[in-house]
Amino acid sequence: MTRSWWGWGNVEDAVRGAELDALLARARALAPGELTDHEPPSIASLGLPASRISAPAALAALCSADPGDRAAHAHGKAFRDVVRNLRGDLRHVPDLVARPRGERDLIDLLDWCGRDGIAVIPYGGGSSVVGGIEPRFADGRAAVTVDLTRMGDVLQIDPVSRAARVQAGVFGPRLEDRLRPHGLTLRHFPQSFEFSTLGGWLATRSGGHYATLDTHIDDLVESMRVVTPGGVGESRRLPGSGAGPSPDRLFLGSEGTLGIITEAWMRLRERPRWRARASVRFADYGAAVAATRAVAQSGLNPANCRLLDAAEALVNAGVSVGGGVLVFGFESADHPVRASLDRAVEICRDHGGEAPDGPADGDPGDTWRSSFLRMPYQRDALARHSLIVETFETACTWDGFDRLHRAVTGAARAAIREVAGDGIVTCRFTHVYPDGPAPYFGVYAPGRWDGLLTQWDEIKAAVSEAIAANGGTITHHHAVGRDHRPWYDRQRPGPFAAALTAAKAALDPAWILNPGVLLPDAHLSGHA
Amino acid sequence: MTRSWWGWGNVEDAVRGAELDALLARARALAPGELTDHEPPSIASLGLPASRISAPAALAALCSADPGDRAAHAHGKAFRDVVRNLRGDLRHVPDLVARPRGERDLIDLLDWCGRDGIAVIPYGGGSSVVGGIEPRFADGRAAVTVDLTRMGDVLQIDPVSRAARVQAGVFGPRLEDRLRPHGLTLRHFPQSFEFSTLGGWLATRSGGHYATLDTHIDDLVESMRVVTPGGVGESRRLPGSGAGPSPDRLFLGSEGTLGIITEAWMRLRERPRWRARASVRFADYGAAVAATRAVAQSGLNPANCRLLDAAEALVNAGVSVGGGVLVFGFESADHPVRASLDRAVEICRDHGGEAPDGPADGDPGDTWRSSFLRMPYQRDALARHSLIVETFETACTWDGFDRLHRAVTGAARAAIREVAGDGIVTCRFTHVYPDGPAPYFGVYAPGRWDGLLTQWDEIKAAVSEAIAANGGTITHHHAVGRDHRPWYDRQRPGPFAAALTAAKAALDPAWILNPGVLLPDAHLSGHA
Repeated sequence: MTRSWWGWGNVEDAVRGAELDALLARARALAPGELTDHEPPSIASLGLPASRISAPAALAALCSADPGDRAAHAHGKAFRDVVRNLRGDLRHVPDLVARPRGERDLIDLLDWCGRDGIAVIPYGGGSSVVGGIEPRFADGRAAVTVDLTRMGDVLQIDPVSRAARVQAGVFGPRLEDRLRPHGLTLRHFPQSFEFSTLGGWLATRSGGHYATLDTHIDDLVESMRVVTPGGVGESRRLPGSGAGPSPDRLFLGSEGTLGIITEAWMRLRERPRWRARASVRFADYGAAVAATRAVAQSGLNPANCRLLDAAEALVNAGVSVGGGVLVFGFESADHPVRASLDRAVEICRDHGGEAPDGPADGDPGDTWRSSFLRMPYQRDALARHSLIVETFETACTWDGFDRLHRAVTGAARAAIREVAGDGIVTCRFTHVYPDGPAPYFGVYAPGRWDGLLTQWDEIKAAVSEAIAANGGTITHHHAVGRDHRPWYDRQRPGPFAAALTAAKAALDPAWILNPGVLLPDAHLSGHA
Repeated sequence: MTRSWWGWGNVEDAVRGAELDALLARARALAPGELTDHEPPSIASLGLPASRISAPAALAALCSADPGDRAAHAHGKAFRDVVRNLRGDLRHVPDLVARPRGERDLIDLLDWCGRDGIAVIPYGGGSSVVGGIEPRFADGRAAVTVDLTRMGDVLQIDPVSRAARVQAGVFGPRLEDRLRPHGLTLRHFPQSFEFSTLGGWLATRSGGHYATLDTHIDDLVESMRVVTPGGVGESRRLPGSGAGPSPDRLFLGSEGTLGIITEAWMRLRERPRWRARASVRFADYGAAVAATRAVAQSGLNPANCRLLDAAEALVNAGVSVGGGVLVFGFESADHPVRASLDRAVEICRDHGGEAPDGPADGDPGDTWRSSFLRMPYQRDALARHSLIVETFETACTWDGFDRLHRAVTGAARAAIREVAGDGIVTCRFTHVYPDGPAPYFGVYAPGRWDGLLTQWDEIKAAVSEAIAANGGTITHHHAVGRDHRPWYDRQRPGPFAAALTAAKAALDPAWILNPGVLLPDAHLSGHA
């Protein structure tokens, strides 16, 4: 398999043939007429500027100035990244890509970059959709992208406590492959699972496939090991603690700005033996939301609980329904879960939902799940044909959901009308909490090849304003990066901003770690 | 009711009469012969030094220099606090006790103390057992204890999201009284419930009565409002978020060193309608631990799950058993829980546990629960009679529990032998996680009236060393305060210590907030 430098995943898995024909046939509903395919440019044609730095002799063997390496590490995998790649617009490219073999290499790299004022971009799978790994700085300084995937093994398994010591650079499939013989699983399946790493999940507070309870990777962490310019630290392996503010919680979500996570002890579970799932259809969206809230507040804690609105059900599950489809599932390694499923179905019926008797095979949930994994590939194919296809997400309390939903879909539709004419806005809940849902929106609209980026950026700004103004978070599990900064800065409490700035100045006095992410890209506050 | 200045709770609820006779009869097993009662001294006899400061005119009405107020706010409620109070040993007493009516008062108090270099001790219910509210500083500076209990109301209830906006100074019973008419509960019941406040729970990462899932108050927080010398901040009400490191998690467990928590939106739940519980007896402690681990890893998530060892079962539940008694319970507002109970009992029987068929009334769990609430009062009565009675707690992974348990009980027994001759060490699990238990130890030994403090301090130092050397946390839910500092400093990763120090210097540049708690009592690192 060959990783795509410009788009999602493996080159061999790209959408083609009958899948492409069917996809484009559907796309023509939005963009009538012939759709032009735009081939990705060759690396050679990009004409990347030469690297401005060279590594000290002792580190040279770890560092690559290969244009293909540099191009592949320049952008994340958002729509705006793919579009810029397709158009050959790579303004900010790392000068070098370094691949440390272990902590010693990493410390030496940080020492060198600190001495020379070179920015360091920690890099796992590179699946950021928020500009989190893009070396884009106001001062245009040189950057080394530190690709951690050579530090990608499972080092130790504790079957008694059900935990494993794992290196940050491990990709999802390899991690699960190593745990499977022990009957264990991390069971953290973000959409990026195949092409993202544990370290990336930890640094960005990744959201997994669990819809309730352990939704974020945060809750699966027993301890973490972090290399900072100011020293190496490791928290104690503990199932719970009340000894001061949680050390791990400061590094979870720090997005490479405070240190580089190298290892973690992760909480595992036995692989499930009992499973049950169902899909419930609703004629009315308000009733579907109320039912979902009731299930979320029931204490049944379904493993999956995804409410697809009518547009989402139609576009991605091929189901025509007036209100929405609620897909949920239960699972356990210890005991049957059918009673929980039945109770959840009963709650839904009390809210007017229609469910087949008993768990169904071949239900809309199945179609939706397989579609889920193909989405990024299809997004790439559509982007090549000048379609705007992107998602964004938030979370809010239940009492504020209706208002937020109306405001965000309204803002999205108005912006689409403004920049693209026609378009579709979909909404699904990816996670549900007793006190609120995490809505995830999809946007599909016709674009202009030479205007795709600004078209999307205008839509994104409009919906981000609507989220900020209506009590949502600017991100539930896509992180902040560089692209969410304006709204994150408004959302973050002032004292915490001051504390985070001071913490960074203490750990990273040369301000080299992922500058511009979470905090300004230069240090102006005079702390260090 | 009158709050005791020197001991636990209300004066009217102290142990007396038949309860006292029975208690002393049991104590004589440890301390044969006549037991002398030591009456608490009168406030007047304490001869407190005069207050060294006076508040500015605008704040004078909020501040009390009354000796009774100052004495009652000098110490927490640990054994060593009660003993020192009984002996009239109050070396470190706040100069003033301030009772702000709202945030404006609080900000004015912080401004004044910052200007004059006066230490500020945030104070909720005063139930610290780790020296967390004691104005004990190397430089002997003046201190104002800020008692927040005038800011103690429920301000807003959101029944849709099931959350309430609550002032930090509310005591447990008042909070629940305000929620009950709405059919809602926070259901956070630390042993101190009656005499501790929401703000104290948040600042110390309190552990509640839930044995699994939402064990710490941390998980019940939707947003928090904090007043710091550097400004006021409030996080957004969100059910979940991935926008940078969690702002709330920095203030949770900050023990009044970074700011003063004034309000929080707390997640609530419906009051339970279904309940089921059982007690299972084990002839072998190892089997009991294995069964408890299996239940903790089953995903059944009991609301209570407490393993009492043989000594704990005998001393506090009146049950004679070879290995231990596992008490667990399930509850739900939505659905029956009997199937979960039956499965948990089945797991225990697979490990050799003996359970009566069906849930039992009048079981050892009942006796233990009523004893639980009387324990602090009985501790006070025994302290008056020169008995050493104290608890300490930790948490560790399952794979390390046997070693830690042996080391800690061994260290406790050796220290008791050394300082007191005979004694009893008990152990129970207060909380269980899939990856480890939170063991809670009790120590009962005969003391000498003039040596009680040093006797206990030697035992405590020995067990703390054993915990630190065997992978435990120095505290699971008792916080760090001043007393746990030496072990906390070793446990805390270096980079986090640097980050926390820098955060404090940014938010509290005059270093006035609870100096000596979590961090050194003077600021030596040159950041501010």
